[in-house]
Amino acid sequence: MSLETDFERIELPLKNAFTISRGSQDVAENVVIKVSDGEYTGVGGAAPSPHYGETPGTVEAVLLDLLGVVESIDDPHALAAIERRMYETVQGNPAARCAVDIACHDLAAKRLSLPLYRYWGLAPDAPRTSYTIGLDATERMGEKTVEAIDAGFETLKVKLGTDRDLEIIETIREAAPDATVRVDANEAWRPNEAVRRIRELDALGVEFVEQPVPADEPESLRFVHERSVLPIAADESCVTLADIPRVADRAAIANIKLMKCGGLREAKRMIAAARAHGLDVMLGCMIESNASIAAACHLAPLVEYVDLDGSLLLAEDPYEGISMPGGDPEVGDLDRPGTGVRHT
Amino acid sequence: MSLETDFERIELPLKNAFTISRGSQDVAENVVIKVSDGEYTGVGGAAPSPHYGETPGTVEAVLLDLLGVVESIDDPHALAAIERRMYETVQGNPAARCAVDIACHDLAAKRLSLPLYRYWGLAPDAPRTSYTIGLDATERMGEKTVEAIDAGFETLKVKLGTDRDLEIIETIREAAPDATVRVDANEAWRPNEAVRRIRELDALGVEFVEQPVPADEPESLRFVHERSVLPIAADESCVTLADIPRVADRAAIANIKLMKCGGLREAKRMIAAARAHGLDVMLGCMIESNASIAAACHLAPLVEYVDLDGSLLLAEDPYEGISMPGGDPEVGDLDRPGTGVRHT
Repeated sequence: MSLETDFERIELPLKNAFTISRGSQDVAENVVIKVSDGEYTGVGGAAPSPHYGETPGTVEAVLLDLLGVVESIDDPHALAAIERRMYETVQGNPAARCAVDIACHDLAAKRLSLPLYRYWGLAPDAPRTSYTIGLDATERMGEKTVEAIDAGFETLKVKLGTDRDLEIIETIREAAPDATVRVDANEAWRPNEAVRRIRELDALGVEFVEQPVPADEPESLRFVHERSVLPIAADESCVTLADIPRVADRAAIANIKLMKCGGLREAKRMIAAARAHGLDVMLGCMIESNASIAAACHLAPLVEYVDLDGSLLLAEDPYEGISMPGGDPEVGDLDRPGTGVRHT
Repeated sequence: MSLETDFERIELPLKNAFTISRGSQDVAENVVIKVSDGEYTGVGGAAPSPHYGETPGTVEAVLLDLLGVVESIDDPHALAAIERRMYETVQGNPAARCAVDIACHDLAAKRLSLPLYRYWGLAPDAPRTSYTIGLDATERMGEKTVEAIDAGFETLKVKLGTDRDLEIIETIREAAPDATVRVDANEAWRPNEAVRRIRELDALGVEFVEQPVPADEPESLRFVHERSVLPIAADESCVTLADIPRVADRAAIANIKLMKCGGLREAKRMIAAARAHGLDVMLGCMIESNASIAAACHLAPLVEYVDLDGSLLLAEDPYEGISMPGGDPEVGDLDRPGTGVRHT
């Protein structure tokens, strides 16, 4: 074999500016990787997040070394060795390592003519994805909710962390009385405030609450979890495998994201460890092109909650992946070999 | 597809009577499963253990239902669904479920022309297996040690749990001064006795100590682990995925066996959960034919310690698997499609 690799930075304008408690963005930059054996090409994407120490620049910088690992191992089926050697080459940088890991999985599964979910022995029976309503003027959030419901979505994930959080959920409840509503405070609340607010959100029929308090305050998370009337999901507190035992008595749901943990193999290990602790699992994402979202869709049958709307938030995506009308992944797309990703 | 299934009970006379602290046997009975798609046949084996509630009779009794699951799903690649539906059909009975799980993995990998380790993205780089010296007259244990060393084995696992444990290890040390020696008390010691004995075993160069105290005394295991100068491995205390967090602060090594946990998928989840807790992993076995040992050999690259001598203890095995001269698995055998098992 003689594997060839390539990467390019892509700019992804968003449908709407995406605002959470920590900040706002109206464009995302991903880096897309290709690994080719001459006959098939595997595609993967990195969605770097400054919150986890990465930028498009750091991704490109380490990819030079990471793709060298792939070329020297020269075997897309040697996924464990590729993962280990990448980690030995550079720790941290999970989105960069993840992109390469995804591309190699895509290539390996394509060479076997198997969709990735089937390569893993799974069935295409994932839960529907939620659709994220970013922070905005309250009225505008209500309008976005109506748009999402009109597009067929049944589950909304609403960003909170403002001084009008209740007003926002009241507005959304009015716009979508039957929707399943989850909220994500992205670390914005103080512990006592969180416990009180969660009681009020429960009265509005919210399903669960994500990352109410800062990740660097593990005892605050435990405080809220022990007192909360709603299940607590850990996102910023739950990054890699070693975090699973740490959040096991501080949350009910582990939010696992490929871009935080560094790849599909680590994500599968995290899901397994979450099971050992009786945690439910949510599979989340960043603002990502289908170059990486498509891979996550194949992992989704393993989890209870799916939040893979990264590409749905884009004005356009140069990569076609798994269509999700109303949040429901198309089995026909999942049945394409590999991750099912295609350049449009 | 139209999968056909079959099973047969096989009697496996042992080279030597196999004695541990709990009892003795000179023959093992396994049940071998076959799942065929008309072109390829997957093979798996059950090695039932009364200690975990199974006999050849219970295996045969539940196989009628479990093989019905496989026939109704009728897709050897749907490994997660097969696993889940078997568990829904009958809990417990791990060796029976394991045999079916192995046979389906063997068939799926054969259909892809991939050795199982490669199907999982691994490399054929497992540690050597240890060779077990069962309890016997002390002098005879010394003779068996010489035989094992002459056969090329470098690591011995010595069964203990007698009133002459030290004398046994002294004899074995004399017979094999350079061997790596592990010991397994199979729950036989009292906690204080264990701590004292482990100090003495440490002076004789023992590497680690398996299951010093009863599994139904979790606090005894913690007591020994906290005071032991040698690493403690949990075997009877570590059966399924949920046990991994339970033994994480009571042992340093998790002994995972397919026949305890119910299959390859559960074993992989256990290995992942062990990583989350920083536990080392040993992959162990029962007295098993190669119909199941061969599958475990493909999982062995994921672990630190390998104890897969089940078939090596047999007078003869109707199934050929992965040859392990001196405990070192033959890469040529591992490179056969599936588990590499063949009827001799």
